[in-house]
Amino acid sequence: MPLTVEGAALLHQMFRITWCSWRDLNESTRREILEEFSTTLEGMGNSTGLFSMYGHKADFMLVHFRKDFEALSETEWHIRKLRIWKYCEPTTSYVSVVELGLYESTGKVYSGLLNDGVAPHSEPWKEAINATLDRQRTAMASRLHPEIPPVKYCCFYPMDRRRGEDKNWYTLPLEERAALMHEHGMVGRRYAGEVKQIISGSIGFDDWEWGVDLFSEDALVFKKLIYEMRFDPVSAIYAQFGPFYLGIRCNQERLSSLLHVCGVVRS
Amino acid sequence: MPLTVEGAALLHQMFRITWCSWRDLNESTRREILEEFSTTLEGMGNSTGLFSMYGHKADFMLVHFRKDFEALSETEWHIRKLRIWKYCEPTTSYVSVVELGLYESTGKVYSGLLNDGVAPHSEPWKEAINATLDRQRTAMASRLHPEIPPVKYCCFYPMDRRRGEDKNWYTLPLEERAALMHEHGMVGRRYAGEVKQIISGSIGFDDWEWGVDLFSEDALVFKKLIYEMRFDPVSAIYAQFGPFYLGIRCNQERLSSLLHVCGVVRS
Amino acid sequence: MPLTVEGAALLHQMFRITWCSWRDLNESTRREILEEFSTTLEGMGNSTGLFSMYGHKADFMLVHFRKDFEALSETEWHIRKLRIWKYCEPTTSYVSVVELGLYESTGKVYSGLLNDGVAPHSEPWKEAINATLDRQRTAMASRLHPEIPPVKYCCFYPMDRRRGEDKNWYTLPLEERAALMHEHGMVGRRYAGEVKQIISGSIGFDDWEWGVDLFSEDALVFKKLIYEMRFDPVSAIYAQFGPFYLGIRCNQERLSSLLHVCGVVRS
Amino acid sequence: MPLTVEGAALLHQMFRITWCSWRDLNESTRREILEEFSTTLEGMGNSTGLFSMYGHKADFMLVHFRKDFEALSETEWHIRKLRIWKYCEPTTSYVSVVELGLYESTGKVYSGLLNDGVAPHSEPWKEAINATLDRQRTAMASRLHPEIPPVKYCCFYPMDRRRGEDKNWYTLPLEERAALMHEHGMVGRRYAGEVKQIISGSIGFDDWEWGVDLFSEDALVFKKLIYEMRFDPVSAIYAQFGPFYLGIRCNQERLSSLLHVCGVVRS
Amino acid sequence: MPLTVEGAALLHQMFRITWCSWRDLNESTRREILEEFSTTLEGMGNSTGLFSMYGHKADFMLVHFRKDFEALSETEWHIRKLRIWKYCEPTTSYVSVVELGLYESTGKVYSGLLNDGVAPHSEPWKEAINATLDRQRTAMASRLHPEIPPVKYCCFYPMDRRRGEDKNWYTLPLEERAALMHEHGMVGRRYAGEVKQIISGSIGFDDWEWGVDLFSEDALVFKKLIYEMRFDPVSAIYAQFGPFYLGIRCNQERLSSLLHVCGVVRS
Repeated sequence: MPLTVEGAALLHQMFRITWCSWRDLNESTRREILEEFSTTLEGMGNSTGLFSMYGHKADFMLVHFRKDFEALSETEWHIRKLRIWKYCEPTTSYVSVVELGLYESTGKVYSGLLNDGVAPHSEPWKEAINATLDRQRTAMASRLHPEIPPVKYCCFYPMDRRRGEDKNWYTLPLEERAALMHEHGMVGRRYAGEVKQIISGSIGFDDWEWGVDLFSEDALVFKKLIYEMRFDPVSAIYAQFGPFYLGIRCNQERLSSLLHVCGVVRS
Repeated sequence: MPLTVEGAALLHQMFRITWCSWRDLNESTRREILEEFSTTLEGMGNSTGLFSMYGHKADFMLVHFRKDFEALSETEWHIRKLRIWKYCEPTTSYVSVVELGLYESTGKVYSGLLNDGVAPHSEPWKEAINATLDRQRTAMASRLHPEIPPVKYCCFYPMDRRRGEDKNWYTLPLEERAALMHEHGMVGRRYAGEVKQIISGSIGFDDWEWGVDLFSEDALVFKKLIYEMRFDPVSAIYAQFGPFYLGIRCNQERLSSLLHVCGVVRS
Repeated sequence: MPLTVEGAALLHQMFRITWCSWRDLNESTRREILEEFSTTLEGMGNSTGLFSMYGHKADFMLVHFRKDFEALSETEWHIRKLRIWKYCEPTTSYVSVVELGLYESTGKVYSGLLNDGVAPHSEPWKEAINATLDRQRTAMASRLHPEIPPVKYCCFYPMDRRRGEDKNWYTLPLEERAALMHEHGMVGRRYAGEVKQIISGSIGFDDWEWGVDLFSEDALVFKKLIYEMRFDPVSAIYAQFGPFYLGIRCNQERLSSLLHVCGVVRS
Repeated sequence: MPLTVEGAALLHQMFRITWCSWRDLNESTRREILEEFSTTLEGMGNSTGLFSMYGHKADFMLVHFRKDFEALSETEWHIRKLRIWKYCEPTTSYVSVVELGLYESTGKVYSGLLNDGVAPHSEPWKEAINATLDRQRTAMASRLHPEIPPVKYCCFYPMDRRRGEDKNWYTLPLEERAALMHEHGMVGRRYAGEVKQIISGSIGFDDWEWGVDLFSEDALVFKKLIYEMRFDPVSAIYAQFGPFYLGIRCNQERLSSLLHVCGVVRS
Repeated sequence: MPLTVEGAALLHQMFRITWCSWRDLNESTRREILEEFSTTLEGMGNSTGLFSMYGHKADFMLVHFRKDFEALSETEWHIRKLRIWKYCEPTTSYVSVVELGLYESTGKVYSGLLNDGVAPHSEPWKEAINATLDRQRTAMASRLHPEIPPVKYCCFYPMDRRRGEDKNWYTLPLEERAALMHEHGMVGRRYAGEVKQIISGSIGFDDWEWGVDLFSEDALVFKKLIYEMRFDPVSAIYAQFGPFYLGIRCNQERLSSLLHVCGVVRS
């Protein structure tokens, strides 16, 4: 198993507006409900992002980054208790935690310890591993607890590593997986200026093994990046992709304009 | 990865009418709502098409071609805010972007650059690629930003290239993929006079890799074309097909007649 | 690709009655709605069949055979506009076209043309093929445009030919497919007196490649026929089956008795 | 194909109570509706069983054994017309027919006829087969038309024989299938005193090939029996299992107590 | 088949609150309904746990441990009859029974009996097996009838052993399975202080073969444990995982605060 360090707890909430009851509200009630929602989002600052979504999967997506799972549950219930939630139909969601895979360090740490004659899973072994993890957590603090990037588009999708009868990621030697991940990272790095990528782990939390968030000013870059990666052996052979969600950032002014349904005669 | 150029952003919206509430409206309200919808569609001209669909998957399908994803989101919200949306149940949708795969040029450009000693992913490499893409975008402008063809029938389906444990499109050499795509294109060309085909890419945008729109005066031609292609190696071995949607063009007069439910006593 | 000729456009509509609103209607309204439905079905004659279905998948199934897709769309909207549609929940449907596969002729025609030195896909080639198809369409007119057989039970299911990584129908040589289909047809012929079979193609129209309708006075024969065929190599190795629907013919008297819910106190 | 004989037509109906409308009824209406339901079930005697189900898949399951498909349809409509059906949401169902596979006789009959020089599918062949089937139907009449066993627990699940690319039940020789089924039957026989098993065939009737009903006084025996069988080659390699349903018998007194919701204040 | 002993019958009930009708209740009605629910849960003590869930799959999960399936059914109906159930939408559930697999003993018992010349499945064989099982049931009584661990987080997921065409758990020799399970158990043991694991069997009861409950003060430990195990051959090659559910313990005070929706103006 590669060593990993974990950071923020994440929740993606996709939901539709139940238009038929929302539109039956009078305008002042709609304004009150939207004010409560807007004020709440404002209070959450850069740790929560609202996106207007493309297609029937959702009208909106809320992305929450929280310091831990307890804070994440509080946020979820905060949302569930808002007046607007009565007019929201949750279509799907994703629970995960920011994860940095330390493939490069893992090999070094393990072989170093083995060279020093430290028995796997012994106390000294565990202490050495924990010290490494602590160092990495400190060094990577800002990547482990990121803010929602202030750009226009967001693409989210979950994924698995394949466990086929013949091609099985989990039976490859660590070295081979590390080499494949390194090559994969190289492709990602070429897009560093155009796309901000946040990987989260969801084994034990949700139905796929990882969640991937991409943020960019240009939605076309998502297709280029993912298409190019799809030819990498690690993706070509070992990646299994879940559904894809595409959203465009929705600030409070836009939210208001989208939901006020101004000038629409009620029917 | 083959080079591609991208054009219009696409949204397919499939929806059912919620007949039980629609029929409870009085006739003048229905007429107002339909007028608003018709006027909106008229304003969208040839960049939006309305189709009456076969079967339970949808009563109607709206197909939008827009210059970019920002304009596409505006259109989607324009539709969501129409009064008729209160009586529509979105059953599915598809988000993609018109894509032309440049398999033929890709090989030439890459080998030319390598022959000239240009290092892959270097600045000169990127510049040369971008220059090629710009030329292609200009040359193919009308195919990248098409109008909805003014014919009777539309067939839409999404598809993937297979990534099986044994048969895997993404691990084939570029030359082999180019040869297979060339042969595939030859079949398509034989139907050029009867079918207008628009391919859109959806990696990063929706759950399949590509969307295919076929337009024709004769619905039977869809079956012939797709059946013939299914024996091509590229489809026989490497294509995975999603659901198929069949629609018949619905102009405003037809829309009115379909939804006015004239002469029906309310119950 | 084997040559095929096409006939009637088909729609299968499966739907449930929304009992809770239907039962809240008073008896005279129910009678009016049923009269409108019955009169409509009567007008459609033998080109439309109504079946009462077994199990939760549907309460009823309507099967429509029409001369082409335009007439089929008209029929579907005719049904959608009936008053009873307000009390119907469409659970699924199937869109297809009667298809006769000409595996036997295909080989002969192709080898004849090649022997005569005619180039594939040349104009003379196309003319010869079209002449063959026209002859077959005339000879098989009654099988291409059948009526709903006036027997008691109907079994409907969609199916695909397998395109597995190893076993792939679409990569077999035409001769092998023709031989397998011939043997398959032999089994069917043994049931000719007991079962009427109608095959329809749905590539490009719906989610499976073919639809199969079986009609018989004895429902047990469906199981015997399909079970026996399942041991044929063409089915054993290359068939993939979708959901199965079993119905019992419902004439107008029966419809009335099923839906009048006579003597039931409303609650 | 192994010879089979068929008996009772079966319908399993799983449904949930729509609690929110059921609880809004006043107590006397609930009592009337339950009396109608109870009286109906009483009239059906041992040919229909009612089970209270575990988990969200259903609150109740009705299992009907009828002499043929016509009687089964009548029963289904009898249920659909009951007042309680307005408060029932059918979640799933299963349509099948009691089937006894005659693997042992099949080999003998076939080889006997071939030894006698009878041509397969000739008239004498068919007559000999039919005579065998008639004898078996008479000999096994009580197993072909069973009553619902009067024990406490019921476990129902549908299943298929595998038709994989490599492991395919339908391409095995009859002798091999007969041998595997014999061994499988041996395991079942060891549980004969504890479990009553009823196998029904559903090819052509529903989405799986067979339905299995197990009845026992002890629910744990279901797990033991199925787990032990799962190591039999015929199950280990060739069985594919659908969803499992577990129920506990619900007599009329229990039904009344479960649905009267006595003493619950309406809200 | 490995010997197993069984203990408590388990039901996991995942459900959402139907917010739109819940919020329309006045505050005193909500308080009454919550008091009834809280009192019921209090009466169930440590044999039932309530968890507030992450994501759209459920707002809450109830986990019930009961002495047998009869008591479990009573509990389920107790919940179904609570006033709050009218405002609950069951989204999924899981039915199983606590199971301890005796891989280590199985080999010893079987070889001992065979050495003593006892015929498999003979009466002496059965008596010896039953004696072994009785001893184990007594020795492991507290593990077979556990209480809900009083810690903060719960992770639940169902799983299968793979029965692929090539990699098939059920065709491995008992010795190989025992060795793989032993190694697997070793990983689990390293987490003993941090995670409490309860395995339940569901063959014959629900759609997967086993359910896994993990309880911990630290949700991140779930990911570490499951990720580490995923590289074990028994998981890497033979495990197939169902959906994952993550919850945080919800005591009565918290329940009240979550559902009172205090201070929220009704709309």
